[in-house]
Amino acid sequence: MEPLTLRDRAAIAGIGQTEFSKASGRSELQLAAEASWAAIEDAGLLASDIDGMVTFGSDTTDELELMTALGIPVLHWTSRTPGGGGHSAGNIQLAAAAVASGAAQAVLVYRAFNERSGRRFGQPQAGVGARPPGSSWNMYLPYGLDTPAKMYALWFHAYMQRYGVTNEDFGRYTVIARQYAATNPCAWFYGRPITLDDHRASRWIVEPVIRLLDCCQESDGGVAMVVTTAERARDLRQPLVRIGAATQSHTVNGNMTFNYWHEDLAVHSEAQHAAEVVYRTAGIGPDDVDVAIIYENFSPVVFYQLEAFGFCGPGEAKDFIANGNIGPGGKLPVNTHGGLLGEGYIHGMNNVIEGTRQLRGVAANQVDAVEHVLVASGRSAIILRGA
Amino acid sequence: MEPLTLRDRAAIAGIGQTEFSKASGRSELQLAAEASWAAIEDAGLLASDIDGMVTFGSDTTDELELMTALGIPVLHWTSRTPGGGGHSAGNIQLAAAAVASGAAQAVLVYRAFNERSGRRFGQPQAGVGARPPGSSWNMYLPYGLDTPAKMYALWFHAYMQRYGVTNEDFGRYTVIARQYAATNPCAWFYGRPITLDDHRASRWIVEPVIRLLDCCQESDGGVAMVVTTAERARDLRQPLVRIGAATQSHTVNGNMTFNYWHEDLAVHSEAQHAAEVVYRTAGIGPDDVDVAIIYENFSPVVFYQLEAFGFCGPGEAKDFIANGNIGPGGKLPVNTHGGLLGEGYIHGMNNVIEGTRQLRGVAANQVDAVEHVLVASGRSAIILRGA
Repeated sequence: MEPLTLRDRAAIAGIGQTEFSKASGRSELQLAAEASWAAIEDAGLLASDIDGMVTFGSDTTDELELMTALGIPVLHWTSRTPGGGGHSAGNIQLAAAAVASGAAQAVLVYRAFNERSGRRFGQPQAGVGARPPGSSWNMYLPYGLDTPAKMYALWFHAYMQRYGVTNEDFGRYTVIARQYAATNPCAWFYGRPITLDDHRASRWIVEPVIRLLDCCQESDGGVAMVVTTAERARDLRQPLVRIGAATQSHTVNGNMTFNYWHEDLAVHSEAQHAAEVVYRTAGIGPDDVDVAIIYENFSPVVFYQLEAFGFCGPGEAKDFIANGNIGPGGKLPVNTHGGLLGEGYIHGMNNVIEGTRQLRGVAANQVDAVEHVLVASGRSAIILRGA
Repeated sequence: MEPLTLRDRAAIAGIGQTEFSKASGRSELQLAAEASWAAIEDAGLLASDIDGMVTFGSDTTDELELMTALGIPVLHWTSRTPGGGGHSAGNIQLAAAAVASGAAQAVLVYRAFNERSGRRFGQPQAGVGARPPGSSWNMYLPYGLDTPAKMYALWFHAYMQRYGVTNEDFGRYTVIARQYAATNPCAWFYGRPITLDDHRASRWIVEPVIRLLDCCQESDGGVAMVVTTAERARDLRQPLVRIGAATQSHTVNGNMTFNYWHEDLAVHSEAQHAAEVVYRTAGIGPDDVDVAIIYENFSPVVFYQLEAFGFCGPGEAKDFIANGNIGPGGKLPVNTHGGLLGEGYIHGMNNVIEGTRQLRGVAANQVDAVEHVLVASGRSAIILRGA
């Protein structure tokens, strides 16, 4: 028996979510249960059809408590990705492998947190959980690299210097993300577009790299997806959204949230590897991608990934964006929900929901004739496609 | 395309470990790296052949730091099981699904900790990590159920009452485990067998359920395994050890470490489900199992699992053990390495290594003509078999 690939064997059969807010007023378990219930119903399944669960290692909702809340009788698969939002597409890979291998029949992927009213990811994290002796974190944290903004900014700065990119270039992305968010009723910034002047007027978070409006939203909320085999999804309630490819790519000398040890900090080597795998697996190239949903805790990450996934050459992202390619009606609409900057930050998993909506034809900012969607989160990526 | 099952698609191609001790004198990352290096070499592979990693959620060794330590260039799969030792067989399921689905080619499964000289699992845990609001733990911890021994003992007591089982019955298992350990040079209790009187003389941990000698070892050490496709493993250095089946089984109203809400506390419902799945997947029954390696943080867990996996009827484990079935030369040798009580407690993952040794024919207490090995850890289980 030859090893299979994940190509087209699994599908996203259901999606669900809560509202995205700054204060949900309820527990993370409840948010997870509400989103999960919605996703199961959206798929036309029953709780008893679910036999697997996937989430991030940092999610506080215990699988066994969630199964009790939902009335799922038995689970034959539980797995979690280590690390942060770079694994948001990776969670889909785990679920796809579970159903493709027959280990489970229908896997619930969930992520829920009170990330604004509870533990805020943007705040200094030195005190949150002891890092083990020998951890590379111990070489950075004592010197003040204690927030994601600070950690990432050093990396972004190398990119800016190499290619003559300025914070105003990042602002051009932000304006487009907020334009999409303004017409997406699910978005925190629904009805609230910004101008480049607004971006320029927002305060520095790490000068001269990122301003407040370059940062994603700290959000409360929950999202969930049901992944099953493509064969089974074909007979369920929703239009078929196949997982054409799914991978993680972690490269040596990397780190979950920074990679100062890489030889070249002006490229995203993990995303380059992920691009190679997902295009090869799905049998497509960048020109076949109709919509790209790209993880952005900070706006510069979009620039790295536009280049790594082959939509433009090294250092060309600023011109690619300035020339109107990623906005409404552009050659490659990007983050049509408003991205994590505009819609909300549910650890990137809301990106998978937007990708699914685009293929179903029900997105708030629907693109015409979508055949392939890339959902990229740096060190992991998936290709979604229709029937 | 029909969903596949995991039957015989993956194999354990390499095993490695450090010594098991009470004070390793080195970091957990180093223990993980040493065991991993040994497993990769045992398989006849290079670090560059590894492209996936699996471990427990609680393992402190970061995948990216381990890949840097070993010189692995790129990983396309990382996943972790939530919860505790009940997932030790579950870790193998994740790795098997990764290679069976083609998501990865060769997955390193590792577990390393200083569980005696560092954070001890047996100590009160109320202060270790805040439990989220709404967590069922919050209903138990404030009342003093703050060690595994206390949590499990309530459950075991129901079994003892139902079937008239005494602590002396548990002692009969312990004596056999220590008999095996006494002739296994890898075991902490190598050369140190005990008698039933020794067991009876050891102090109560939770009277009248478990004594000190019913408890597994708190251990320092690391173990690792390489999982790849059966097809590829056939051409590698070691005799073929196929993963005939692998599953997790979590049932509603359960919990990672106790299940007081189950209707019947005298059965292990998770293990019953796991048994059904692995026997059906592998196409065998209990009579086909030549050696059983059964997770035991405490000796009574063996009793539950002997019954759940069909080796004897409900309440019959005490007689099954007393009649000599599980000792050397018995009908079903159990925990031939000495178990977690006798060899050491590397979160149950050393059990997978013993199962592999038995199929390779290199175990310290080698059983003749082994064709099938069950490695059971309550809520997860695998069947291993040869070519």
